[in-house]
Amino acid sequence: MILILKSGATDEQIQHVLDRVDALGLQAHLSRGTYRTIVGIIGDEQKLTEEPLKAIPGVAQVIAVMPPYKLASLDAHPEPSVIDVSGVKIGGGNLAMIAGPCSVEEEDRMHRIAEAVSAAGANLFRGGAFKPRTSPYAFQGMGEEGLKRLRDVGHAHGMPVVTEVTDPRLVDLVSEYSDMLQVGARNMQNFALLTEVGKSERPVLLKRGMSASISDLLMCAEYILSQGNMNVVLCERGIKSFDTATRNLFDVAAVPLVHQLSHLPIIVDPSHATGRPDLIPACAMAGLAAGADGVHIEVHDCPEVAKSDGPQALLPEQYAEVASQMRKLAELLGKTISPLPETIA
Amino acid sequence: MILILKSGATDEQIQHVLDRVDALGLQAHLSRGTYRTIVGIIGDEQKLTEEPLKAIPGVAQVIAVMPPYKLASLDAHPEPSVIDVSGVKIGGGNLAMIAGPCSVEEEDRMHRIAEAVSAAGANLFRGGAFKPRTSPYAFQGMGEEGLKRLRDVGHAHGMPVVTEVTDPRLVDLVSEYSDMLQVGARNMQNFALLTEVGKSERPVLLKRGMSASISDLLMCAEYILSQGNMNVVLCERGIKSFDTATRNLFDVAAVPLVHQLSHLPIIVDPSHATGRPDLIPACAMAGLAAGADGVHIEVHDCPEVAKSDGPQALLPEQYAEVASQMRKLAELLGKTISPLPETIA
Amino acid sequence: MILILKSGATDEQIQHVLDRVDALGLQAHLSRGTYRTIVGIIGDEQKLTEEPLKAIPGVAQVIAVMPPYKLASLDAHPEPSVIDVSGVKIGGGNLAMIAGPCSVEEEDRMHRIAEAVSAAGANLFRGGAFKPRTSPYAFQGMGEEGLKRLRDVGHAHGMPVVTEVTDPRLVDLVSEYSDMLQVGARNMQNFALLTEVGKSERPVLLKRGMSASISDLLMCAEYILSQGNMNVVLCERGIKSFDTATRNLFDVAAVPLVHQLSHLPIIVDPSHATGRPDLIPACAMAGLAAGADGVHIEVHDCPEVAKSDGPQALLPEQYAEVASQMRKLAELLGKTISPLPETIA
Amino acid sequence: MILILKSGATDEQIQHVLDRVDALGLQAHLSRGTYRTIVGIIGDEQKLTEEPLKAIPGVAQVIAVMPPYKLASLDAHPEPSVIDVSGVKIGGGNLAMIAGPCSVEEEDRMHRIAEAVSAAGANLFRGGAFKPRTSPYAFQGMGEEGLKRLRDVGHAHGMPVVTEVTDPRLVDLVSEYSDMLQVGARNMQNFALLTEVGKSERPVLLKRGMSASISDLLMCAEYILSQGNMNVVLCERGIKSFDTATRNLFDVAAVPLVHQLSHLPIIVDPSHATGRPDLIPACAMAGLAAGADGVHIEVHDCPEVAKSDGPQALLPEQYAEVASQMRKLAELLGKTISPLPETIA
Repeated sequence: MILILKSGATDEQIQHVLDRVDALGLQAHLSRGTYRTIVGIIGDEQKLTEEPLKAIPGVAQVIAVMPPYKLASLDAHPEPSVIDVSGVKIGGGNLAMIAGPCSVEEEDRMHRIAEAVSAAGANLFRGGAFKPRTSPYAFQGMGEEGLKRLRDVGHAHGMPVVTEVTDPRLVDLVSEYSDMLQVGARNMQNFALLTEVGKSERPVLLKRGMSASISDLLMCAEYILSQGNMNVVLCERGIKSFDTATRNLFDVAAVPLVHQLSHLPIIVDPSHATGRPDLIPACAMAGLAAGADGVHIEVHDCPEVAKSDGPQALLPEQYAEVASQMRKLAELLGKTISPLPETIA
Repeated sequence: MILILKSGATDEQIQHVLDRVDALGLQAHLSRGTYRTIVGIIGDEQKLTEEPLKAIPGVAQVIAVMPPYKLASLDAHPEPSVIDVSGVKIGGGNLAMIAGPCSVEEEDRMHRIAEAVSAAGANLFRGGAFKPRTSPYAFQGMGEEGLKRLRDVGHAHGMPVVTEVTDPRLVDLVSEYSDMLQVGARNMQNFALLTEVGKSERPVLLKRGMSASISDLLMCAEYILSQGNMNVVLCERGIKSFDTATRNLFDVAAVPLVHQLSHLPIIVDPSHATGRPDLIPACAMAGLAAGADGVHIEVHDCPEVAKSDGPQALLPEQYAEVASQMRKLAELLGKTISPLPETIA
Repeated sequence: MILILKSGATDEQIQHVLDRVDALGLQAHLSRGTYRTIVGIIGDEQKLTEEPLKAIPGVAQVIAVMPPYKLASLDAHPEPSVIDVSGVKIGGGNLAMIAGPCSVEEEDRMHRIAEAVSAAGANLFRGGAFKPRTSPYAFQGMGEEGLKRLRDVGHAHGMPVVTEVTDPRLVDLVSEYSDMLQVGARNMQNFALLTEVGKSERPVLLKRGMSASISDLLMCAEYILSQGNMNVVLCERGIKSFDTATRNLFDVAAVPLVHQLSHLPIIVDPSHATGRPDLIPACAMAGLAAGADGVHIEVHDCPEVAKSDGPQALLPEQYAEVASQMRKLAELLGKTISPLPETIA
Repeated sequence: MILILKSGATDEQIQHVLDRVDALGLQAHLSRGTYRTIVGIIGDEQKLTEEPLKAIPGVAQVIAVMPPYKLASLDAHPEPSVIDVSGVKIGGGNLAMIAGPCSVEEEDRMHRIAEAVSAAGANLFRGGAFKPRTSPYAFQGMGEEGLKRLRDVGHAHGMPVVTEVTDPRLVDLVSEYSDMLQVGARNMQNFALLTEVGKSERPVLLKRGMSASISDLLMCAEYILSQGNMNVVLCERGIKSFDTATRNLFDVAAVPLVHQLSHLPIIVDPSHATGRPDLIPACAMAGLAAGADGVHIEVHDCPEVAKSDGPQALLPEQYAEVASQMRKLAELLGKTISPLPETIA
């Protein structure tokens, strides 16, 4: 931690700063420059994150030297983590291909979609049973019945399933029926929820909030990891920006940036990032080329009757086409699309 | 609802669109322009918010004519709502002056701060007992003991109290000890929490999320209203932007914009909006001048030892100064700072 | 300047850093922390702004201690500057009230608008003769004839005039006919233009770019100041953001922030900041309450036939109303709306 | 054009709207809905872009049906344009590989860099002689001597050259010495400059402004095209956002979005988009995978002494590595890196 003092900081203020550092059991290193005095603090920076150092009179700026997350950092685990989702591996060269409808819908439709995406190479099946909708009047999901249907259909086609959990009271229920828990973008900083999924034994797909920096995202992963659940996969799904031509702004640089900072895998979700079927294939390819550990795409066989997010769904044949391109790109990059497990535990 | 069709939309596609509208029990009005065909839909737009009209083949754009919220709109309630918080009125010319520390802390400190802010004219006392912290290693609040202390101190000084609730499982507990429930910015779209506070009898202070449009904010208010709790006060507390000189970007235009769209009161929180004590007084005045129904400011008597957000706290004497200016401005604007209730129910 | 070295920086890299600092004639101060080594550089930081210190192997981060602007900073001029525009003072408690149509239009209309705004208390008349339009097919302004008309009309009503210059080749011409040169938001970083207006003897109204930080804005002012023209007034006119309900986002905190960093006056332009007549009065009041040194508002007597920006113009009677409110607020704040000059030099 | 009227629009207001449309020689089509009246305008929308329709009393919203640009649109030219830069083709499957230092520097260094990047497969050489610097005290470029050196070195190694022009007065000079003119991000809406380069015979590389939507970018291209210069290549180089971990935010979805709207080629510049050498290769690959018509990367053989932007330069060997990967990806995508011309005209 480095403290830059104000240009007019008095000797008394400087002494007070040194006393405060001393009282915290750390060592201060004073450096008087031409314009400013600087105090370097030597010792465990973690002790200081709690301290309102910037509120000490005479302090102008506080600069952290270490990242605020520990378990999520490369220092804690220098090799890429490989997360196992009921037999499907994500990270370290293994790619997740997550596909399925936005919401769980009719049973025969679910089977049709599952069959199509698994034939195209998807290895994880998705669908929402508890939907976080911006309108209280919109379809809120099928609930427990939907969870059961998602699992039954996914497993029938050999794919583990991932579904969103939106409420700490539902973590046990959703864990029972799914292979991976999704925490959505709007709940990224729902710390009560993060704490509960951190206690679950299911791997977690943590989506980046629409105004979250990568550091914010990794701090939320840290919440989960600090509860003992080390199986976290991050997901870039678009952030807020000023151009309304797309639903969100796809931040593809988040992929190599996470890989510079953390051992956790990161996948991309071009469906939510763009909200436009005509842009999804190009962005899926861009994500993979940037090093993503997987791609999440929403697929529906009749978008105009979908119960949610129809306008951004790919048709099964469109998914098959981009999946085929992604397979070739994966090969060029020396990566493997994880095969389906022989059985799902 | 207006549908703008793609330039090459075929007659078959147009007929299919008309059939879909008809099937929904609504009337379509076709208009063929020089370049594009347009379909106006006549009838209850609410029926359509659920329908993925944009996914119908041939449809290029869907334009809503009505806002997506009903109960929060001026149509539902053309006069400004006046919310009563245990005797303190907010809205319709009545101003809330919310002040207090970020977190509930030691008892004597709480009394000192309460005494100072109430002497300066504050009419609601605040403090967090359950803190949504970005780091899992940071102080998470005193919990139930903190709730009790906040209430006892606030009421001892004649002020109703407001405190944050972060978890749907805690709504009953927090309602028991507080006069107003705060939903924080990071939980603005935590729909499970919104639903629970919507069932509570306590008024709700709903803070705008950091990447929420005003329409998003009003939709979240709608969640609470639609559960039967009509006592919602909105709060502008800064949104994400690119200039790192301030913690967030204070969107003062949100105040008159909300007043153009909704009957709900809106207050401003320059503490979180700027994160800088040197900018808080100017922004507090700006908020009032823009028509805000109140101002929320964090105050601490020794910021350098505060358990959270110390660097953005005003000292009691700084608060007294800006409160005095705000009183004069309120008078100029013909508004009233709500007096303290005779007794707190 | 502070250099934070990478965690694995070798002794050789550290020595190389020290040698580089030494070669620049500055003194280095080494501090080895628990996790990182830090190099404080003592001496004239300005010498270093040119140097790509971050590209030195082993350097992780470079932190500037001083702001990158000098002449614009409070250190250079600790008192607020008062700018004189042909007799109208701006800054240090003197308020500019700039009003007029977006573009210079028909002569009788110009007289009608000038009469109305001057009766309402405006002290500077505005109008564009060279318009930076987003479409090449849109009205580009009346050119020199417009300049002449603006000056003649403004001066006839006792008001100095301000108008935009968009091209370095036009600075002399525009200077001849106007009392103050405006550099628009889209040209804020047009350094060729800044250099030319820096050589002019006319005061300059420098509008903030839509994606400029306050530091960026002050650097652009520095371009003008460094050419010898010390008469620069800044203008907050809205920045880009994600909510499309307003044209731009009005950053009212920019006003006190500039006053913390610079001696230059700053005014606000709620017309461009919001693009909505129904929000302009509230935002004008907010700007003044935040300490702005003036307010810029576009006024047109028949917006539906205006040659540009009609939809955001106030009617003369609307302007008169907000001007009357602003006068009362100015009095409360102890500020003076600059009176019209006896004669315009 | 569609006009949505206010909910309380009177019959007189509606009639006035119809009269105004009629007076413009266009046909109105009235549609009274349950809540709102809508007026569709049939005829040449271009006639209306100038008209402040939104300022007509009773009008709530104006919705354009056609894009505001014509020459840049796919309607004007349904096939991808192929731009020829002194023999190097860009667009329609032909890729530009632009590389070189940020600024033109010493002659031997220029030769070393040119040799390295041309060996790695670059087909256009870049370097700035007139630099738009955020600080007036920073190196402003070598001027005409730099132009001459850039051309001589580039051509000696068989590569046409591209360099920035920042001032309308310099367009002729820069055109004389270069094969392609660059308009930088800060000058994207410098309409005087756009008009001048529109009169030049040199192809133009138009960089996207940091707060420009894709529609804004295409409107600026339209300025150039409307002057008769049809050889415009667009460039995505990052936009402003809230995460400070990267210099800008790389908007890779801009690539397929431009291809949906326009025939103009678009390349990507991961150097400015990220500002971080450790992220540039991944983002270069992402850009190509998304369909970009080329990649622009800054290369320097000793970044720590570079005259500008050293910290974001790739070393020649790093460039060679990513260029080799890009070649393989181009092959997979069925695209061709344009070969060097036999002679440069």
